[in-house]
Amino acid sequence: MRALVYHGPGESSWDTAPDPGIEDAADAIVRVDTTTICGTDLHILEGDVPEVRPGTVLGHEAVGEVVEVGGGVRAIRPGDRVLVSCISACGRCRFCRQAMYGQCRGGGGWVLGHLINGTQAEYVRVPFAEMSTYPLMGGMGDEAAVLLADILPTAYEVGVLKGGVRPGDTVVVVGAGPIGLAAILTAQLYSPGRIVAVDLAPARMEAAKQLGADVVADAAQGPEQLVDDLTDGLGADVAIEAVGVPESFELCTRVVRPGGRVANIGVHGRSATLHLEDLWIKDVTISTGLVDTYSTPDLLRMVAAGRLQVSSLVTHAFGFDRIKDAYDVFSHPADTAALKVALHREPSHESLLPQP
Amino acid sequence: MRALVYHGPGESSWDTAPDPGIEDAADAIVRVDTTTICGTDLHILEGDVPEVRPGTVLGHEAVGEVVEVGGGVRAIRPGDRVLVSCISACGRCRFCRQAMYGQCRGGGGWVLGHLINGTQAEYVRVPFAEMSTYPLMGGMGDEAAVLLADILPTAYEVGVLKGGVRPGDTVVVVGAGPIGLAAILTAQLYSPGRIVAVDLAPARMEAAKQLGADVVADAAQGPEQLVDDLTDGLGADVAIEAVGVPESFELCTRVVRPGGRVANIGVHGRSATLHLEDLWIKDVTISTGLVDTYSTPDLLRMVAAGRLQVSSLVTHAFGFDRIKDAYDVFSHPADTAALKVALHREPSHESLLPQP
Amino acid sequence: MRALVYHGPGESSWDTAPDPGIEDAADAIVRVDTTTICGTDLHILEGDVPEVRPGTVLGHEAVGEVVEVGGGVRAIRPGDRVLVSCISACGRCRFCRQAMYGQCRGGGGWVLGHLINGTQAEYVRVPFAEMSTYPLMGGMGDEAAVLLADILPTAYEVGVLKGGVRPGDTVVVVGAGPIGLAAILTAQLYSPGRIVAVDLAPARMEAAKQLGADVVADAAQGPEQLVDDLTDGLGADVAIEAVGVPESFELCTRVVRPGGRVANIGVHGRSATLHLEDLWIKDVTISTGLVDTYSTPDLLRMVAAGRLQVSSLVTHAFGFDRIKDAYDVFSHPADTAALKVALHREPSHESLLPQP
Amino acid sequence: MRALVYHGPGESSWDTAPDPGIEDAADAIVRVDTTTICGTDLHILEGDVPEVRPGTVLGHEAVGEVVEVGGGVRAIRPGDRVLVSCISACGRCRFCRQAMYGQCRGGGGWVLGHLINGTQAEYVRVPFAEMSTYPLMGGMGDEAAVLLADILPTAYEVGVLKGGVRPGDTVVVVGAGPIGLAAILTAQLYSPGRIVAVDLAPARMEAAKQLGADVVADAAQGPEQLVDDLTDGLGADVAIEAVGVPESFELCTRVVRPGGRVANIGVHGRSATLHLEDLWIKDVTISTGLVDTYSTPDLLRMVAAGRLQVSSLVTHAFGFDRIKDAYDVFSHPADTAALKVALHREPSHESLLPQP
Repeated sequence: MRALVYHGPGESSWDTAPDPGIEDAADAIVRVDTTTICGTDLHILEGDVPEVRPGTVLGHEAVGEVVEVGGGVRAIRPGDRVLVSCISACGRCRFCRQAMYGQCRGGGGWVLGHLINGTQAEYVRVPFAEMSTYPLMGGMGDEAAVLLADILPTAYEVGVLKGGVRPGDTVVVVGAGPIGLAAILTAQLYSPGRIVAVDLAPARMEAAKQLGADVVADAAQGPEQLVDDLTDGLGADVAIEAVGVPESFELCTRVVRPGGRVANIGVHGRSATLHLEDLWIKDVTISTGLVDTYSTPDLLRMVAAGRLQVSSLVTHAFGFDRIKDAYDVFSHPADTAALKVALHREPSHESLLPQP
Repeated sequence: MRALVYHGPGESSWDTAPDPGIEDAADAIVRVDTTTICGTDLHILEGDVPEVRPGTVLGHEAVGEVVEVGGGVRAIRPGDRVLVSCISACGRCRFCRQAMYGQCRGGGGWVLGHLINGTQAEYVRVPFAEMSTYPLMGGMGDEAAVLLADILPTAYEVGVLKGGVRPGDTVVVVGAGPIGLAAILTAQLYSPGRIVAVDLAPARMEAAKQLGADVVADAAQGPEQLVDDLTDGLGADVAIEAVGVPESFELCTRVVRPGGRVANIGVHGRSATLHLEDLWIKDVTISTGLVDTYSTPDLLRMVAAGRLQVSSLVTHAFGFDRIKDAYDVFSHPADTAALKVALHREPSHESLLPQP
Repeated sequence: MRALVYHGPGESSWDTAPDPGIEDAADAIVRVDTTTICGTDLHILEGDVPEVRPGTVLGHEAVGEVVEVGGGVRAIRPGDRVLVSCISACGRCRFCRQAMYGQCRGGGGWVLGHLINGTQAEYVRVPFAEMSTYPLMGGMGDEAAVLLADILPTAYEVGVLKGGVRPGDTVVVVGAGPIGLAAILTAQLYSPGRIVAVDLAPARMEAAKQLGADVVADAAQGPEQLVDDLTDGLGADVAIEAVGVPESFELCTRVVRPGGRVANIGVHGRSATLHLEDLWIKDVTISTGLVDTYSTPDLLRMVAAGRLQVSSLVTHAFGFDRIKDAYDVFSHPADTAALKVALHREPSHESLLPQP
Repeated sequence: MRALVYHGPGESSWDTAPDPGIEDAADAIVRVDTTTICGTDLHILEGDVPEVRPGTVLGHEAVGEVVEVGGGVRAIRPGDRVLVSCISACGRCRFCRQAMYGQCRGGGGWVLGHLINGTQAEYVRVPFAEMSTYPLMGGMGDEAAVLLADILPTAYEVGVLKGGVRPGDTVVVVGAGPIGLAAILTAQLYSPGRIVAVDLAPARMEAAKQLGADVVADAAQGPEQLVDDLTDGLGADVAIEAVGVPESFELCTRVVRPGGRVANIGVHGRSATLHLEDLWIKDVTISTGLVDTYSTPDLLRMVAAGRLQVSSLVTHAFGFDRIKDAYDVFSHPADTAALKVALHREPSHESLLPQP
């Protein structure tokens, strides 16, 4: 088969790779129809995730068709169209029993495109397939579905649910890239009173507005004052960090009100300063987390029912063989206005979307 | 009357001060029978709390008798023996309506011995008296009761309840001073599997054991390894910070397990480093908070019923006129082994306890 | 002044009554501009609420202007436009401290038009006025605001919040009278997947649809089957009882799924049969409750921000002197299609709405 | 092998039965060392559980050694000593993903000794063995361990946790049979202020006291008055039903305070009367449930650590071949004072315990 193989920092190629086969009774082999690129894939290519060994196929998001299952798999069968989740789950360890699949100690967690070969390929082996794939209903398009492999449940679980968004809340989302936009989208399930999106790029601020932000603020111009004005000086009920740099995390801790909640979604490479001299008295709760994907079935149902409009998050589409172009587009959002890029097995899909 | 008056950094005196009078219909005047000294009082004397103006009477903990009430006060009457809480509460603002009295916006919160005259005096004016005092049952001694003015509800609410201690949990308490010991004591209400106390001072480690710690660890000898060994490498379910320095907070974030909770009780003067590069993926929850004292009635009931043995936290007792000696003893725990010191109006009480 | 005075079962009159005056430092006198009639008022008139003594002024919902306050009242002043809540709250008892104002033991709870004179009058004395009234923002009309005195917080707190409605849930609301419709409206704040309204009257089923029900079911035609079909035989996540008869409560316990929640809002005069032989194994949670009105400030904000469209719940309007006509209209909804009827001091308001 | 085979209402025999074998890759065969009898087994013998077909081996609780595993089982191996839980769990269905194993839709739930052959036998086939058995640590005796197959997690999850017992609470446990006693035992993990046990039999009232009840009340003498007196007329915070008859459930709804919680554990064969005319206004929460056994690992740890003393719940022990005697003793507790009876493969164990 063909697959995007990582060769070490800065190096990857769309290459021939061995076809995956069943290695365990719980495995499934899925023919990938649509995959996408995650910010984490860029981090890997930059060499920031050293546990990814050269030779690994990248990618942890896919929609496709089951072509083979191991002897212990009954819930899915060859021919089923499924979502391949970014998180695999053994289902039996202490963490899986609490639906904390992201922390799985039994061989799951985030392994695809990380510790084992991933989804940016024609075929992928999915471990613990019954716990790690979700059957797709007929009407849902590949591009909507593939967003539920990672970005939607991440924003919803780690941002909105850990942040405890409630009706009437003022919610500040710092960062209006794909993850931040997904947080803006899913926060609306709890009817906040006001969503404030903070970013530097005008195009992302515009996208934030279209996806439901009530107010947008330029990160360079002190959004603290704006939040203060909007909340009678009290601060935001919930601040969601969706960038992954110390500055944006620290901004969250400044704009949150006494008794409020800071939910960190961002993947951080450096430590932040926690101003405990101000925060010790402020009754704040700060949460971090890797996605568990326990919400994926709920989100699938809501997308299928038209309660969640996700498709505008996909701005570009390519055939598999143009995956290097797709990485280029995705890694230069300031120039391309890219949010998520879809990669399709069938080139015909490509024409449905604006081209770079 | 006589009272401990603050004159600026490093300066205080047991002095004549004007008798307090009713200023508002919700006030009560309480004759102080027993008061105590808090670590925060030492911070004030060091000049770390600049909003305390010279001339202020210090202290925010007391047991005494109501001698006069304002026109709007019905729930307590002259002659009632009451606990004066460190937190006053208007009862009507947004925060008080959620029992977040520590964050009161209506003139309450921590005001005694801070923004208005306090309890280290023969008499004290208590604002919002119905919401800020608690009637005492006959059998409870002054020294047990005065611990419920601040230290017990602080450790319980900000440490144990925000930390979400559950039956079977491994709980690490960093710091075995009075607040840490109170956390060790009240954590036992939730039957943790194991309490690990971390401190540097052998006397405090010994006190921790006597109050219920199952294991004590020397902060200087890498308690991370010990916690690892005790938990099969997983980490603690709950880590409670009870010191107030960056190092102990950072230790808490290292020993906590994935999915665990860090509850900060310590009063911090400096910022800490938050290692988001490790923590972003770890599903941790970090909480801070000022006490609200919503648990005071519950704690009073449990102490009265003998379910909570608090009296060993008081190590020394003095008459009011020896308050400067009491500060000396309290501020040198390494030499005196002091935990809490009681100050009594009636000198006869003094003989009941070991003298410095 | 003029007021609707209860004279015993079946008897009431719009009569001259003594002007109310301040009786306690916490009281306020409010000039009523708009009031309304509650299903409970009909129960009182039928003699079902024997603790209401003849001579009592009825009504527990109002919007008006403060004209006088007691000596202890600071948060509101004469001239303020306020919402008078159906629940008064002492603010200091055990229950008020937990925001369970409906269970107040300090002289509050539901007292207006029940144990003391109420709001269907030109003036009303409101006890514990700071805790029992809510300042109104300029833009909110009387008819929207008066719905927040009882019906909206009741449906939201006792139905939606106790029922724990979550995004994606199937919610069955049994009864599409004013309270049921308010539950349909406020349930949408949590983005349920599907709301099923059950009633007998076609007009109410139509109103349910317009207010957001996705499916309506005729109570006479076995809604159990419909719910089964919609949920793959599993049952509803949440069933909300909004009628107050045994049959509708029992229906709720039949349509709820294993692990689901039944929230009773209805005021019941008879006992129901609880089929524990079926339910013991089913993991259900059943809740009851009187409204506490802790959500009133949140709801006011959401109505003011246009996030909650409540005005269509008011179907008729009258001047005060036509209050007997208003009771007639309200008590014959099958003929009049009445939901809530507004009663205005200023007759000019009357013309804004369809007449009976 | 030998096993207790059900032959229809009133009929069972200790008989030869076919040895169980692996039927599915997820199965394990366990050699039973110790089993016990549950109240539900008596119901089956009385014909109350018609889905149990004649020919079924009874029993759903066991401690034993794994002798064979299916091809998909890795977490346990032949030779392992395990607890066989009363609940099997597929681990993959909607309910198992939420740790609601008792409601499993994938072929698990309560199946042993109910829908498939059970544990009152020399060998038992355990489906979904990795999710349905728990490895036992060396030091824990069979008789302590077997109590964790059903009775302890049932009382803890369905009574104590659903009832939301909190420190300082007044908890009423109606019924001091084995399940009620297990509720009294596990409620203490949350440090209630006071446990009131209600029963008719003096021996059970005595057992309740020894296991931690603070007060015992005779069900025949109106325990309502006693609870009233103990709680200043307010009522119990939590009432736990552990009998399974309408009268005891209705008693729970009478003794619970406004805002309190009724947790039903009892297995009911008849409906109860729910006095909604009193309860609608009372803010009560009523829960029912089958055990999920999600707490079993926690309970095992606490028993192993000596934090939970369960062994006095076993009053009698027999060899397997005396199982009919054991049923006799267990089904006449008034005469035998039996709580739980242990059945051992090894007769030598028998001598350790008092004989009938």
